[in-house]
Amino acid sequence: MDIIFYWTDQAGVAVFAVAGTLLAFRKHMDGFGVIILASTTAIGGGTVRDLILGLPVFWAHDPTYIYTILVAALLTIIWLRYKAYIPMTTLQIADAVGLAFFATMGAQKALAAGFEPFIAVIMGTISACFGGMIRDVLARDIPMVLKSELYATTCLVGASVYVLLVPYYPVIALAAGMLSTLVIRLGAIKYLWSLPVFPDHNEPH
Amino acid sequence: MDIIFYWTDQAGVAVFAVAGTLLAFRKHMDGFGVIILASTTAIGGGTVRDLILGLPVFWAHDPTYIYTILVAALLTIIWLRYKAYIPMTTLQIADAVGLAFFATMGAQKALAAGFEPFIAVIMGTISACFGGMIRDVLARDIPMVLKSELYATTCLVGASVYVLLVPYYPVIALAAGMLSTLVIRLGAIKYLWSLPVFPDHNEPH
Amino acid sequence: MDIIFYWTDQAGVAVFAVAGTLLAFRKHMDGFGVIILASTTAIGGGTVRDLILGLPVFWAHDPTYIYTILVAALLTIIWLRYKAYIPMTTLQIADAVGLAFFATMGAQKALAAGFEPFIAVIMGTISACFGGMIRDVLARDIPMVLKSELYATTCLVGASVYVLLVPYYPVIALAAGMLSTLVIRLGAIKYLWSLPVFPDHNEPH
Repeated sequence: MDIIFYWTDQAGVAVFAVAGTLLAFRKHMDGFGVIILASTTAIGGGTVRDLILGLPVFWAHDPTYIYTILVAALLTIIWLRYKAYIPMTTLQIADAVGLAFFATMGAQKALAAGFEPFIAVIMGTISACFGGMIRDVLARDIPMVLKSELYATTCLVGASVYVLLVPYYPVIALAAGMLSTLVIRLGAIKYLWSLPVFPDHNEPH
Repeated sequence: MDIIFYWTDQAGVAVFAVAGTLLAFRKHMDGFGVIILASTTAIGGGTVRDLILGLPVFWAHDPTYIYTILVAALLTIIWLRYKAYIPMTTLQIADAVGLAFFATMGAQKALAAGFEPFIAVIMGTISACFGGMIRDVLARDIPMVLKSELYATTCLVGASVYVLLVPYYPVIALAAGMLSTLVIRLGAIKYLWSLPVFPDHNEPH
Repeated sequence: MDIIFYWTDQAGVAVFAVAGTLLAFRKHMDGFGVIILASTTAIGGGTVRDLILGLPVFWAHDPTYIYTILVAALLTIIWLRYKAYIPMTTLQIADAVGLAFFATMGAQKALAAGFEPFIAVIMGTISACFGGMIRDVLARDIPMVLKSELYATTCLVGASVYVLLVPYYPVIALAAGMLSTLVIRLGAIKYLWSLPVFPDHNEPH
């Protein structure tokens, strides 16, 4: 099981590094700033999670994560040099897959460390959303987590599915947590689902 | 005494969650972004304090803080749905009360963990100001702590009052620390007190 | 050796506090916001490094660092009151010296704590760049680390020089790490060196 968790984590890091590099390209950044943005997206959320849980920060003790980021960012850069245009959806799908990986893996790590299920759900959400949030702050974008109304909610749902199922079916829980996050996020992008809280905000302002 | 500290802390979290929700409303945010902004304001400062002090992050081990945020944010949202207008002063008063709670409680927690009085004063200021600072960065506002010249100084004074009095009168110290923060902050808002450092900045630029 | 490390660290904090104060002045900030910006620049990077390495945060256990910041910021403020104009290069040189100190000292601290050389290089870069990054985010500037293409790379090189030489010549390694960072950074400023990644970004957009 641990080996599955490990490679799921690495895959999440790789996918988020691709998303970060794509965003850096769209923002007309260059040089090492691209790697900084890719890294922040890929390991920012997990770093905040580990700090809050009081666990050793995952990548500080295993440089493989950094190699994964460098390879993923480099391949994306090479790809972008040949194909100068990337559709917005490519970036959004990479981001959605990253969310799916980290929402479940973040919850898993908190549960494994003995934290309460409710805290585990929050940790899944933080793992998934905070990397992109830090990236957006650095790139001077409005954080997706504030702009897109269902963004954080998607991670909450995915992490909750995992936390609720894991006592009974550990492997299915992992798959179900990821799949529910992915389906809701892609549905929200495609059908523009939203979550209104203030009714009068619907009028233009 | 510990039970007083605990409920003071919860009250501070609730008041800051209200302030965060009010700001989210003013910034025309919606959906779960409101809760993110409320939470960041409410527990951001205390989280940074606990991380720097090397203590377990307070809310990770006691979900009650998160429930407090959710209830406070929900009540504020319901209230805002009925009364679409909130005066700016409501937000500023909620914020000032939050500062008063956290400036003293932050200093108290650092002292209790055996840190030096001077570090305790800084920790009170960080607890009080950093939640709002992170919130302002996310909402793309100029952080209050940089814009309003007396903002951080208010917390320094409140935390200092607490740290100076607490060896002699623990309960009075708590009340005096909070009251001095509150009075200076409300005075600064009402009478536009400021703290000039560069004389030539007074001319328009 | 430890005493050399300690005073190098203090010197780095002082230089970055000067750089932070100069930036606050250029951004027309005033009051305590100046001290907040100076402190963030001076100890932000080292704080993030210590948190990620799981070490006690350096300044929380030794208030001398805060006194250093206050004295450095105060002297800079007094100097600015007499001489209302500062050339941009003064700020950039202060910043470059700060980078040189922290890139090597950050790597040194990670190695001393038993982390792998590759992680130590990253920690040097984080120590050097993150303080300025947080400062730029607060001051609503585009972070130098993203804008200036060689900024982070400079720190990577300086930290790598230190890490490669330190097993053989500990004292020379310290000097060589700092000097290489300083020379590359000042060269990049003077001769506008850059590090293009995406060729088509060279056209105006």
